[in-house]
Formats: sequence, C-alpha cells, structure tokens
Amino acid sequence: LKACFRLTIPMKIKIITLFPELIKGYLQEAIIAKAIGTGLLNIEIMNLRDFSDNPYRSVDDSPMGGGDGMLLRPDILEAALLSVKNEMSHVIYLSPQGELLKSQTAKKFSESDREIVLICGRYAGVDQRFIDKHVDQEISIGDYVLSGGELAALVFIEAASRFIPGVLGKIKSAEEDSFKDGLLEAPQYTRPQDWSGMKVPEVLASGNHKKIAEWKAEQALKVTEEKRPDLLRGKK
Amino acid sequence: LKACFRLTIPMKIKIITLFPELIKGYLQEAIIAKAIGTGLLNIEIMNLRDFSDNPYRSVDDSPMGGGDGMLLRPDILEAALLSVKNEMSHVIYLSPQGELLKSQTAKKFSESDREIVLICGRYAGVDQRFIDKHVDQEISIGDYVLSGGELAALVFIEAASRFIPGVLGKIKSAEEDSFKDGLLEAPQYTRPQDWSGMKVPEVLASGNHKKIAEWKAEQALKVTEEKRPDLLRGKK
Repeated sequence: LKACFRLTIPMKIKIITLFPELIKGYLQEAIIAKAIGTGLLNIEIMNLRDFSDNPYRSVDDSPMGGGDGMLLRPDILEAALLSVKNEMSHVIYLSPQGELLKSQTAKKFSESDREIVLICGRYAGVDQRFIDKHVDQEISIGDYVLSGGELAALVFIEAASRFIPGVLGKIKSAEEDSFKDGLLEAPQYTRPQDWSGMKVPEVLASGNHKKIAEWKAEQALKVTEEKRPDLLRGKK
Repeated sequence: LKACFRLTIPMKIKIITLFPELIKGYLQEAIIAKAIGTGLLNIEIMNLRDFSDNPYRSVDDSPMGGGDGMLLRPDILEAALLSVKNEMSHVIYLSPQGELLKSQTAKKFSESDREIVLICGRYAGVDQRFIDKHVDQEISIGDYVLSGGELAALVFIEAASRFIPGVLGKIKSAEEDSFKDGLLEAPQYTRPQDWSGMKVPEVLASGNHKKIAEWKAEQALKVTEEKRPDLLRGKK
C-alpha cells in the first residue's frame, strides 16, 4: 500500500492599490472566487492611502520638471511595500513599460512558490526611484494606457489562476486554450447542428476521434497563419 | 460675433455578457464614472441569459466533436445581438484570436460615431458560426487566456475612454502617456527631491523648460530602446 501525498501551496498575491474596492468587486468572478474559496489562491489587498504621512491622506505630488497629472510618492509606496514584503516576495509593477504578459508567463507565475506583490499605479504614474529600488519586474498587459494598475492586476490574476492545478474542472481545459503550443485554437461548434443553413463541419459529427484531432490541429495552424502569422515566426 | 458650436456625440457601448455585475462593479472607476456621469460615455449592459430559450435559462451546449468546457450557442447570442444591434453598430467579439488592442486603436474607437457592441465570451468560447455571421472585428487585449470577455471589455472601455475629449482634465494627459509617437514615456520623479540619497535628476529641478523637454525626449527614446526595441522597428 502506497500513499501518495501532494502538498498544494496556494498561489499568494498581495496587491497595493488606492482603490481596493475595484479589485474586491471583481474577485467574485466565478473561477477566481472558487480558487480563493478552495484555498488554492490567496489574495491580500492593501490600501496605499493607509500609508500616507499626512492628515489629508494624500499619497501623491506633482511631477518635477512639470507635466500633467500627479505621481505616487516613492516614500509612501515604500512604506506600503515594506509592510507586506518578505524575502520570498517578487515585486511586480504593472505598467505599459513592462514586459508583455503572455500565457506562458502567467503559467510560470502560477507555479512559482514566491509570493507576488502587485503594485498598482494611478494618475500619471509612480516615482522612478521606487521602481529602481524595489521593483523586481515590470509587467504590461498590452500596448495601451489604463487609468491605473487595478485592471491589469485583475487580468494578471485571472490569466494566472486558470493554470493553478485544480482551479479549472480539469487542468486540460487551460491546456487546450489558445496559445497551447503557441497556436490559436481551432474554430469550435455546438448545437444546433444546422443553424439556419449554417452547418457544423461534418468531421466534428463523425465520431472519428483520430480524424477530429487531425482536423483540429490543421485548423489551429490555419487560423494562426491567417490571424497571427507572427506567432509562427517563433518571435517573442 | 462668431459662435462656436461643438456637438459632442457620446461614445456608445453596448455589452452582451453572462455576468453583468462584474462589469457594473468596475464602472465605478473614477474616470469611467466621470465619463458616464458627464454624458460623454454611454454604456448599456445586456444579460445573455435573458435570451435563453428554455426554462433552465441555459445558453450553452457541449462542443461538437468533443473537448472540454461548454460553448455559447449561436442562436442565443444572435437573439441577444439582434435586440440591441442597429445599422450603425460595430460588433466586436473579445477573444485571444483577435487583433491586438493598441493605444492608437483605442483612440480611434473613442472618435468613432458608430455604436460599439462588445460580445463577452465565457466557458470554452462561442460557436464559430456566430462569429462568421455577425462579428465585424475580433479584438484581443493580449496573448493570454481569460475566463471570459468581461475583463477584456473593461480594459477596452478604460483604454478608449481616456481619449474622449473632456474625460481627462486636459486631453494632453492622454497624449503625454506612453505610446505617444509610439514611444514609452520618460521616467518621472516627484518629491521628496532627495529620497534617502536617491536624487531627482538635476535637469528636472532646473526650471529650464527647453532642457527639460530635450531630456524627456532623449529619455523616452532611451527607455524604449532598452525595454521595447520592437516599438522602434516600426513593426505592428
């Protein structure tokens, strides 16, 4: 008789934000909520404003050298970070200047045993010295500008938590999604089989699993060639 | 005496989703809420489940040919779409297979007078025939997989609404963000000027606006070369 143990370490994320309620509201999303509920994902939210050093609870100041908007002060960001950071923390600043988030990066984060601290910027951004001193990695969810890091943090959490074993019904689901093997997914069809004259491709109703698998692989390649040839060029 | 009129047409977005509350919760975000409050942005949310044709209110079915997860049925999606679509609608399906959202695309959408319909997928995706028949454009917010289109819709709205004239204090703010002229932004600094030995670059405290502007332009180029050389190669 052999007992098999698997120690599950939850994915741990701490978030520093000026708008905790924007984050909290979305954590009710079914898959994230399930991951939290089953202890596979652990999320802590810190309000940056609690680390203000003044009675107005302000956390920002205007940019040196002029410019629109306000910047988050490095000393206040540091106070917030030091309250949650430990030697195992990996500190990520969500910023359009960061490395682009990819499916494979999200998977790696889900497998890491390092606790992740997500810093959400707001207004015109954060003081560069805070980034230089404390940030391990800048991550961007895409080449556009958001009003703060909160949506980016949620995207990061949603993209990564799908890969935590046990979070989706079968892990296979995540593995069958787009970007598996770097390809987009084949087109998918469900009932009705004949929908006002538009029919599901015959092969899918054939019951021939080998042919279906071949068709899906062909289609995945074809769709990727048509829509995202750059993914096939093996470029990052 | 010359009167100057400017007719402001609000940006109009309709969203079809199975989880309206996930979208609604985030619409309290300050800048989006202000855009909605001042009538510059108009958002309508439709619950796909209201268009189900059965007493169980189900909207999905299993994929033909096998595979994990469930797919949204084309007939139910169509019923929801036809309830909101008009001849001026531009129908977008948010999907990892879509064209990557960029800052400039977001800006164009903010300037369009066509009403935008965002279709949020869920589970394993939507039936391809619905896409073929009704979708004008597939848009992706990045090369990762989310659990549904809701976060992508919010990213789309946040990225685009910043460009609606009048939404940010000065439109200049959006124009000064990263990706202006295709470059990342220069590093930014605020007080304290000397933060535990780390000083703000001297030029920013010089008061010399010409030198500051030159420094910012140089830095923007330098940062882009270091972090995202691909943006300089003029590639899409």
